[in-house]
Amino acid sequence: VTGREAPRLRIACQQIAPAICQQEENRRTAKAAISEALGVGAGLIVLPELVTSGYVFRESDEVRSEALDRAAGVFDEWRELVAPSDAVVVGGFPELASDGRVYNSAAVVGATGILAVYRKIHLWDNEKRWFTPGGDVPPVVQTPFGKLGVLVCYDLEFPESVRALAIRGAEVIAIPTNWPLCPQPAGERPAVMIHAMSAARLSRVCVACCDRVGTERGTEWTGGSCIVDVDGWVLAERAKRDSGLISAEVDLVRARDKALNQHNDVLRDRRPDLYGALTDNG
Amino acid sequence: VTGREAPRLRIACQQIAPAICQQEENRRTAKAAISEALGVGAGLIVLPELVTSGYVFRESDEVRSEALDRAAGVFDEWRELVAPSDAVVVGGFPELASDGRVYNSAAVVGATGILAVYRKIHLWDNEKRWFTPGGDVPPVVQTPFGKLGVLVCYDLEFPESVRALAIRGAEVIAIPTNWPLCPQPAGERPAVMIHAMSAARLSRVCVACCDRVGTERGTEWTGGSCIVDVDGWVLAERAKRDSGLISAEVDLVRARDKALNQHNDVLRDRRPDLYGALTDNG
Repeated sequence: VTGREAPRLRIACQQIAPAICQQEENRRTAKAAISEALGVGAGLIVLPELVTSGYVFRESDEVRSEALDRAAGVFDEWRELVAPSDAVVVGGFPELASDGRVYNSAAVVGATGILAVYRKIHLWDNEKRWFTPGGDVPPVVQTPFGKLGVLVCYDLEFPESVRALAIRGAEVIAIPTNWPLCPQPAGERPAVMIHAMSAARLSRVCVACCDRVGTERGTEWTGGSCIVDVDGWVLAERAKRDSGLISAEVDLVRARDKALNQHNDVLRDRRPDLYGALTDNG
Repeated sequence: VTGREAPRLRIACQQIAPAICQQEENRRTAKAAISEALGVGAGLIVLPELVTSGYVFRESDEVRSEALDRAAGVFDEWRELVAPSDAVVVGGFPELASDGRVYNSAAVVGATGILAVYRKIHLWDNEKRWFTPGGDVPPVVQTPFGKLGVLVCYDLEFPESVRALAIRGAEVIAIPTNWPLCPQPAGERPAVMIHAMSAARLSRVCVACCDRVGTERGTEWTGGSCIVDVDGWVLAERAKRDSGLISAEVDLVRARDKALNQHNDVLRDRRPDLYGALTDNG
């Protein structure tokens, strides 16, 4: 890493409140959120899961009516906003694929347009009724600031997901989420934030989770957006159930160095020959 | 699980202070610790890593002089203590193998003697100078209370380790540790405890980490023993650097149910076909 400037990156997560099946309103909300994040100098902006559509669907037809293909205008809007500063935005949407299937996807949009689309591979609860599970590994996208991995919500609860992205070179992982509110003991962080902290430290990657707020058809949300550094400590969090931006600056050079001391390295110390249970389809 | 009594289990972790190269003193300390734990009704007793020898060795000859084979008297002492109540003790020792190699091992001792020996597969720092890394997957041991997995210390920092044990049926995972003291922000738990919380919840297994205390040749320890339930919440902890027992009762029936709701199951939702990066040796 000598001979080049440290690529410090400001990350922003916009904990907003999409409205179910209100596409136009959600477009405006997302545009305002991206603009605000650009205003604080963000190079990576993370929006919630299914930010274009809302989450609590009642039936498949409803999801299908909200589903977008990759030519949808919303991605042009995002591109136009981020292009002047070469920033990148990651946000969720219901994707209508060319074969007619619908996926719970996240788009990575930069100055040149859509850089990648990730189709969520671990579906939560009723999502299994609406969506086809993704069939491809989560992407590692080369961006102006470094290598970006993408997951969506429940994927974080599979330690395999973050680990595999880190092995494949991801330095920062953006995770659009819609975390339904879960009980937690007094004084504890939401469990999902504890997963983010542990996962970041175990693989020495930055993790940025963007949750949502706003009661939707009776569902409440955790509102637990957080930005976690490679040591697993929370740089910014919004563990209250209100809307707003969180932001923090990270040094991605640190994510490229997996050494803990002269003898240990979190990735090189792995023993893949002894991990067969993880990939055995049993 | 109908038709049988819920196998409630009291777990005890004995956060004691082994003394480097003081085998006789360490035997007495371990015996007293086991007796105290039996006195509170423990069915599973976890002792620290390398509890028979201490940890901060100066040279290989020193380790070798402390290394024990499986016929060592200390394991008979542990067996005699736990036999009347059918309890199980897990504790670390430097193992002298029949081929002359030395491993950082943990013994699982029950009423019938040694039930399993696990040789640590992820070695920390100078351990790489003294020990041969284990060549076998961590064991899942059938015990009177259920299926016990065993890891040692740094193994916990490989999410692959806990996950693979859970896939292989472990309901509770005992982790003898010697966690060197690391910095943490004010108000945060030690990072290793955050890993234990996350790992337990992700796979819905109980996790019992037994750390040590006592300055040894200048090294200080985290003293972060903890017992974590299948929801990832801490039932008992000793996050102060003092010696003593922690104990909690767990319901292992809960560890056999991996369902989160009618659609989700933490193990069945895995996508092993997409986790190839984890076992690729390339």
